[in-house]
Amino acid sequence: MSETSSLAALFSPASIAVVGASRSASKVGGMVLANLVAAGYRGVVHPVNPAAARAGETLAGLTPLASSALLPPGVDLAVVCLPREQALPELALLAERGVRAAIVLAAGFRETGRQGFLAEQELKNTAESAGMLLLGPNSLGLINTACNLNASFAAGHPKPGGVSFFSQSGAMCVSVLDWAMGLGLGFSKFISLGNKARLNEADVLRALGDDPDTKVILGYCESVEDGQEFLAAAREVTAKKPVLLLKAGITPAGARAVSAHTGSASGSPAAYRAAFRQAGVIHVDEMAELFSLAQAFATQPLPAGPGLAVLTNAGGPGILAADACARTRLTLPRPSQATLARLAEALPGFASLYNPVDVLGDAGAERYRAGLALLLADAQIHSLLVILTPTAKSEPLKTARAVIDCACGPDNPEAKPVAACFLGGEGVRPAREALLKAGIPCYDFPEAAVGALSALYRQRGLQASRAASALPEASHTADAPWDDEAVAIISAAHAQGLLELGGVTALEVAHAAGLPVLTTGLARTSAEAVRLAGEIGLPVSLNLALREGDAAGAAPHSGGRGAPFARLHSAGAVRNAFLTLTNRAARQRPEASVTGCLVQAAAGTPQSGFELVVGFTRDPQFGPLLSFGLAGVGSELLGDISYRLAPLTPTDAREMLREVRFYPLLRGVDGGAVVSLRALERLLLGVSRLALRAPRLAGAQFAPVLAGAEGVFVAGARLALA
Amino acid sequence: MSETSSLAALFSPASIAVVGASRSASKVGGMVLANLVAAGYRGVVHPVNPAAARAGETLAGLTPLASSALLPPGVDLAVVCLPREQALPELALLAERGVRAAIVLAAGFRETGRQGFLAEQELKNTAESAGMLLLGPNSLGLINTACNLNASFAAGHPKPGGVSFFSQSGAMCVSVLDWAMGLGLGFSKFISLGNKARLNEADVLRALGDDPDTKVILGYCESVEDGQEFLAAAREVTAKKPVLLLKAGITPAGARAVSAHTGSASGSPAAYRAAFRQAGVIHVDEMAELFSLAQAFATQPLPAGPGLAVLTNAGGPGILAADACARTRLTLPRPSQATLARLAEALPGFASLYNPVDVLGDAGAERYRAGLALLLADAQIHSLLVILTPTAKSEPLKTARAVIDCACGPDNPEAKPVAACFLGGEGVRPAREALLKAGIPCYDFPEAAVGALSALYRQRGLQASRAASALPEASHTADAPWDDEAVAIISAAHAQGLLELGGVTALEVAHAAGLPVLTTGLARTSAEAVRLAGEIGLPVSLNLALREGDAAGAAPHSGGRGAPFARLHSAGAVRNAFLTLTNRAARQRPEASVTGCLVQAAAGTPQSGFELVVGFTRDPQFGPLLSFGLAGVGSELLGDISYRLAPLTPTDAREMLREVRFYPLLRGVDGGAVVSLRALERLLLGVSRLALRAPRLAGAQFAPVLAGAEGVFVAGARLALA
Repeated sequence: MSETSSLAALFSPASIAVVGASRSASKVGGMVLANLVAAGYRGVVHPVNPAAARAGETLAGLTPLASSALLPPGVDLAVVCLPREQALPELALLAERGVRAAIVLAAGFRETGRQGFLAEQELKNTAESAGMLLLGPNSLGLINTACNLNASFAAGHPKPGGVSFFSQSGAMCVSVLDWAMGLGLGFSKFISLGNKARLNEADVLRALGDDPDTKVILGYCESVEDGQEFLAAAREVTAKKPVLLLKAGITPAGARAVSAHTGSASGSPAAYRAAFRQAGVIHVDEMAELFSLAQAFATQPLPAGPGLAVLTNAGGPGILAADACARTRLTLPRPSQATLARLAEALPGFASLYNPVDVLGDAGAERYRAGLALLLADAQIHSLLVILTPTAKSEPLKTARAVIDCACGPDNPEAKPVAACFLGGEGVRPAREALLKAGIPCYDFPEAAVGALSALYRQRGLQASRAASALPEASHTADAPWDDEAVAIISAAHAQGLLELGGVTALEVAHAAGLPVLTTGLARTSAEAVRLAGEIGLPVSLNLALREGDAAGAAPHSGGRGAPFARLHSAGAVRNAFLTLTNRAARQRPEASVTGCLVQAAAGTPQSGFELVVGFTRDPQFGPLLSFGLAGVGSELLGDISYRLAPLTPTDAREMLREVRFYPLLRGVDGGAVVSLRALERLLLGVSRLALRAPRLAGAQFAPVLAGAEGVFVAGARLALA
Repeated sequence: MSETSSLAALFSPASIAVVGASRSASKVGGMVLANLVAAGYRGVVHPVNPAAARAGETLAGLTPLASSALLPPGVDLAVVCLPREQALPELALLAERGVRAAIVLAAGFRETGRQGFLAEQELKNTAESAGMLLLGPNSLGLINTACNLNASFAAGHPKPGGVSFFSQSGAMCVSVLDWAMGLGLGFSKFISLGNKARLNEADVLRALGDDPDTKVILGYCESVEDGQEFLAAAREVTAKKPVLLLKAGITPAGARAVSAHTGSASGSPAAYRAAFRQAGVIHVDEMAELFSLAQAFATQPLPAGPGLAVLTNAGGPGILAADACARTRLTLPRPSQATLARLAEALPGFASLYNPVDVLGDAGAERYRAGLALLLADAQIHSLLVILTPTAKSEPLKTARAVIDCACGPDNPEAKPVAACFLGGEGVRPAREALLKAGIPCYDFPEAAVGALSALYRQRGLQASRAASALPEASHTADAPWDDEAVAIISAAHAQGLLELGGVTALEVAHAAGLPVLTTGLARTSAEAVRLAGEIGLPVSLNLALREGDAAGAAPHSGGRGAPFARLHSAGAVRNAFLTLTNRAARQRPEASVTGCLVQAAAGTPQSGFELVVGFTRDPQFGPLLSFGLAGVGSELLGDISYRLAPLTPTDAREMLREVRFYPLLRGVDGGAVVSLRALERLLLGVSRLALRAPRLAGAQFAPVLAGAEGVFVAGARLALA
């Protein structure tokens, strides 16, 4: 839904109608009613069940109504527990009665094909014209622990807490709910979005962003309904609280499975990753990771820096933690001299004092307590991981209490995050439970613990960079030195029915769009080449020009700058090059339609540096998706391309450069800039602008972009028209 | 230990002395005795305890001996449960009594510093001179379920089965034991190696390789004692059964933690990874992964191909499985037309028949059974994953039984591997237990299940490539066209006290070693350059030559083949180039000692292709470690280097090329070979030979290697002398 209406009627209803309420525990209408009662909802509940009403029965002690038409005015929420065919007319009836919000649980809509799609449209239209909030269809329902509301047919009710979870998949809701209850983790809201006919992830994100009970937002999504809307909502919310999303279908195979499952085309994986990054969302890759990160985010503060201390009673798991650490941005700093001295006093002689700090296999709780207190006081240390392996001398439960005392008491005045990893089975179970109950995340394996602490640190970085950088501003696109010439060329080409622009014309568009383009002319004869070279000024480079629409023709400089016909210094060389190139092409590629040669300025172009490619495509979900990499097939093969969505902020442009693995080559290894990074950033911003201003462009590829310390020059372009 | 003696006295002893046996459950000697008795060991047990013997007490119903000196002759195994100081003289006594094997549990040896190191040496010498097997010190002991032997102080005794586990870390033993018992997974042997004073991972690997009770070998190691010995043992054993190793300290931070923990320097992470790869070991990165792979390997056959079918009652987890699949080499093939037709009959109308196959949320056990049987019969499908999310209609336990029936019965005649992922908590626990008991691995999350099935497929590939390729043969090094000239040059340089060879001399070594070297001469004057060019034959390329030992001088062609002074066609051009290069150097790098220019043949060298680097270093643990990548700083920055240990097999050489991400660029995108791969493989084999034949070489770097379709040419070399 487009308007950001308050979701209070849905989340905190004063009265609820359960349409299709039942006394049978095996029916959805029975489960919902039972859940509502069992969770202790304190508002008014109106069961609706014609048969029960006729028979004069009560349902869960309440007198059922014979029809939704008999509902009192002003009911906040109706949970529709009827199959698809009945749900449709029922929703209309509820709308008439002025019900403010509805949850439709029935499946059989969009996910089942054309007929279901039409039924879903009808549902949506009914709710929309009545201004009624609609969750679902194909939803599992909703839980809000703040008002003891369980309007779902999922089993169980989590304890109150700061985590809220929304999910497109009911199965994922069930799993997370089960897991949360098993761990005793506190939740605020559980929202099963279902098919998202009206309410989608953007609406729910905004509502949870404004919800004072929600400290951390977890989500599972397979697709988003409106990419730009999602991006805007996520940007707003991540400035306030952490958002962790598990996106299913983030690989091509997964994306195909999403289409089969939801019946909707999803955006490209690259676009999703870019959107999450630009919105400050923490992108979670696996189900296990969602769970382990959620535990840490729900209970722990963010660390002030990367320094992690590992305190362990066994070497092996400590080393595995160190290995895991090396795969993140966390560091394992050596404790300060003062800390080392105090550790040496507090721990036995053979204990390893460096980091990981090994208190040895015979350590009881007090040795842990002493080590922990000292490490918490060390300024180099920003977060802590406590590892325990059961031994003959270990005291798991007492150690858990020592960890809780230190982490939650006066020993931790700076509120450094603390996590635990207690290995082993039954023997450490009470210790684990004590830790979890006290709000210390406890993991089965050291790697998961390090992963979670590292995510806390990443979130810290996200918040810091968010605070430092501005959001994209209208001025960024409005003030561009843009005239209508580029659009005019594109329109003219479009009118001619062209699908692709290359060669000189494409470079003209780029030039008109304010991109730094090398002066280029098309020579059909060698004489024309010599004349053009004179006009442009020597040295020039020559490249074969093929007919528009012929792919190869759109990429001049295919031979690279090291090719024989780059940087020609005399008219004779230009003439020879023209003849050689065209003759060779006629011999070697008789199928290509050679129109002549592109003559291109070579003066002032970088003598050393890189050939790069900058381009964009239009993602069906998120709009223009910019890409940046090395020219040639290499970038794609190496998977070394960075992506961002337009509009690009200056920060986005800077990050796009830094994200590729070859960035150190651009920056220069010894400090001397190999490539003008500022000029490259300007180019990226210019392409972002062009993508937004010229909707007729389906995509563009600027390659090669000659990049050196002297500047950045677009030497070739290829534009796809929509 | 070097000899591969039989470990029968250790693994299957007929009689055991427990030295330091105790009745106290809090003492190590008490725990060991209690474990021996509780596990039902059927051999003779001799407790040794002077005080108890004096007091006439019995220990666990047995009469203790007052001293090891009173042991009957021919005792197989002694478990020494005494502290370090007592353990040393006791071991000597046991050796005198002819005890065949000993386990020393005490800590306080090598891991604690110099004094401990000396004590460990003494222990080792005592055992060695008596020809006594020695496990430990600092060991947790040993379990062998085949003869009800629990000679450890770990709690619990796993049920018999096909997995054996060895570990350098006692903590890891405890964790794996706990986990195995929790899952009811069957184990054959548990071996806690401790400090490995005599018995090390290579001995244990060989013994487990020969052990008919062991189907799969799991190991945890922090370091290996003897790299080459380990490599040889692992190569032998992986030809017979899968070996999965979790190597801690595989990152620089982790390696530092290993040194702190074990007091021994370990090999480089790259060398370990290469060793595992070449030995056919499955390298496990995280503790959780070791557990999840072990489950699959312990129970399931290897799949015949990559095709995985996912059968699920919920879309979300199915999509996550598809995503996980895309990160491995597994594929999700579409079922055959015949299977699709039968699935359409067996499943409801809205079910998704493609892969993942979605039987829908209301599926009971019989729907799963029907889908599973059909997919097992499909020739495209080589392995199966069954996902269940609890819903109102799901039947977890019945579904588990259906899975067991299908997987273990006549529906699975080709023995395709089957794994399960049952999401949710208490509700699915009985189903999970039934699956595990029946030998179907069951995972908490879809990604872990896919990871395990993918490892089974990888193992299939390892076995296939192992069967196809020969082991390195002596002939490979012996028959080389090698004369002593290279060694002579190196010795002469060494005698002069040089630490590094570059320029012409290094190329001479390479040439003498049979590597394809470009003809190169050193010109001190421009006239000499012209003369050399005449001798070598035009065209030539020129590069600055700096004094031996000056790093820059060792790398000719630093300007690349596109540089101005490559491929000079006339005497005049050669003279000019000489003067320009030397003058520029004098101006720009006055600190460098220019000795002239290297004049190098350019005729016949590739006009297009790549500049590569091939080299080796000597790993302290594994010996010569070869590397291959793109020349320039790029390779290292991009982390795109492949490593292998010498001696290289032809298969190793081929794989070294295929492993780098830029391999498709070498191979050519459209089939035309860009680079002669055969010539490159020969070069790698030649460098491997040189590394083995010239121990005075501490390392070598051949760069640039000009590689094109015409061949491969070493244009620069730099050798480090030991």
